Amino acid sequence: MHEFELINKYFSKLSSSNKSSLKLNDDVFFDKSKKLVISVDTYVEGVHFINFQNPDLVIKKIIRSSISDLICKGVKPKYYFISGSGNKKTFTKRNLEMISKSLHEEQKKFSISLCGGDTTFSKKLSFSITSVGFSDKIVFRNKAKINDDIYVTGNLGDSLIGLKVLQKKIHLNQNLSRYFINKYFHPNLQINISKKLLSIANTSIDISDGLVADLERLINNQKLSYELYLNDIPISKNLNRLIDLKIIKKIESVSSGDDYQILFTASPSKSRIISKISRSLGVKISKIGKICTHNQKSQIIDEKNKKITLKYKGYFHRF
Amino acid sequence: MHEFELINKYFSKLSSSNKSSLKLNDDVFFDKSKKLVISVDTYVEGVHFINFQNPDLVIKKIIRSSISDLICKGVKPKYYFISGSGNKKTFTKRNLEMISKSLHEEQKKFSISLCGGDTTFSKKLSFSITSVGFSDKIVFRNKAKINDDIYVTGNLGDSLIGLKVLQKKIHLNQNLSRYFINKYFHPNLQINISKKLLSIANTSIDISDGLVADLERLINNQKLSYELYLNDIPISKNLNRLIDLKIIKKIESVSSGDDYQILFTASPSKSRIISKISRSLGVKISKIGKICTHNQKSQIIDEKNKKITLKYKGYFHRF
Repeated sequence: MHEFELINKYFSKLSSSNKSSLKLNDDVFFDKSKKLVISVDTYVEGVHFINFQNPDLVIKKIIRSSISDLICKGVKPKYYFISGSGNKKTFTKRNLEMISKSLHEEQKKFSISLCGGDTTFSKKLSFSITSVGFSDKIVFRNKAKINDDIYVTGNLGDSLIGLKVLQKKIHLNQNLSRYFINKYFHPNLQINISKKLLSIANTSIDISDGLVADLERLINNQKLSYELYLNDIPISKNLNRLIDLKIIKKIESVSSGDDYQILFTASPSKSRIISKISRSLGVKISKIGKICTHNQKSQIIDEKNKKITLKYKGYFHRF
Repeated sequence: MHEFELINKYFSKLSSSNKSSLKLNDDVFFDKSKKLVISVDTYVEGVHFINFQNPDLVIKKIIRSSISDLICKGVKPKYYFISGSGNKKTFTKRNLEMISKSLHEEQKKFSISLCGGDTTFSKKLSFSITSVGFSDKIVFRNKAKINDDIYVTGNLGDSLIGLKVLQKKIHLNQNLSRYFINKYFHPNLQINISKKLLSIANTSIDISDGLVADLERLINNQKLSYELYLNDIPISKNLNRLIDLKIIKKIESVSSGDDYQILFTASPSKSRIISKISRSLGVKISKIGKICTHNQKSQIIDEKNKKITLKYKGYFHRF
């Protein structure tokens, strides 16, 4: 049973008396009356990050992953809490200094500040991050409309290549390795477009588990389908080179998550304003598909206008 | 280096721009302008709970431990988030049903509701709980005044005996075992007195790490000392029997934490009103000591008016 089924079956009813929890079917908690938005996530060594050899980089990545949940909903993160469970080896003086330095840099970059947390002893290293922001409104999940265009910010897929390089599953020259590893550890959060989403997007999510997996989560309570055009899915020049060299397939690279780009849908009438926002902010926003009726099957269409069948839709936390 | 030193050294400066974090030297985060109070805690198997043989009881205890941080500050908890890291064995259908049932019961008892969280895979079981409440003001730490009386609610020490019974370090008859184990798993949170603290207490904390350890944390940024009168520290009749039978010493039983009673100080002028509140709410509130100047050494005075030297002040999370 994967995480979403598990939440549905055992925990949704526990939040039924409480509208703000969005019945646990969104990535954040939103209390409209208090204008409060909260996201809670846990990151485990060996699952969400490979190891702790680069504490500075791991910490940056998990902070970005956590605040990404707010940013993709149109909310500016303000506070964060960090709980670390680890042992003597993980919390050495050197590591603590590196963690502290990284947090300081992320605080400056995203104007957030540390508000608390705790440290506990555990053989297995994990971090739990709580991010907090304030907003009158947010962009919800499950609010797509038939005929909406599907958009994504930035580029997808670079992070997966970085991971594969780190895992020594792909071997690249030093420059390319550095490029992809940097993309893996430093997801480029679209903080500038965040507030604009409130006026253009019908529904939104960040891509943490993979384009297809997250698109399906985005509309999981709606009777809708989608069409994605593989050709239109934005990738970097460097990733394009690897695809040309048949090192990886495009559909695989963009379906594996960890990109922390924003996936959203918008009415076709917003098309021009979205192009304008993209130009004025210098943020890449690509139209990659369409929301369709329930009568047709969801599909991904490749360069040759053929339907693609996906073996693997993305990352799920399975028990 | 224990948790408090660690926080001070590496992380306090990260919250320096932000008054609400109380420079990480309190048990909660309080944003006065947003009237927001948040507490984050992590509970690890083998550290904060022995094992997961009784998921229903463990879950109740960690929820209470988390909301206790708010209750002891005069704040009613409203929402909670739970993140569980575990494996197939810990999140079986039976366990999930028991967890869900326990959460439901705690929600009813304390009028709180589940707002989110996540589940991740890890070999080591741990839970991270974020509790949220709203309040115009809170009772802070480090606000004791010289000559304040020191008070504690309820009884101390039962929880430790329950733990020792579970660990098979103490053997008692079935009735007594059941009594103490129940106290260990179901700390009796003083939710009714919580709001009253705002008008009577100068400073407060909950007893999670032990009476002496937590008293020292309560005033750790102040140049003060304390006197505690062992005779006046409230214990149950059942614990008194064990002390009479020399199964455990009183000072040991009350110094080991996990009681989740409220420790607070108040001006001697509040003495009558505190007695009145105690009677009218039916909540035991005991005067157990005094805050003194920095010129004298902190001390605990026993039944024979002798000073006690403590080998072990309570529980610290050491790395």
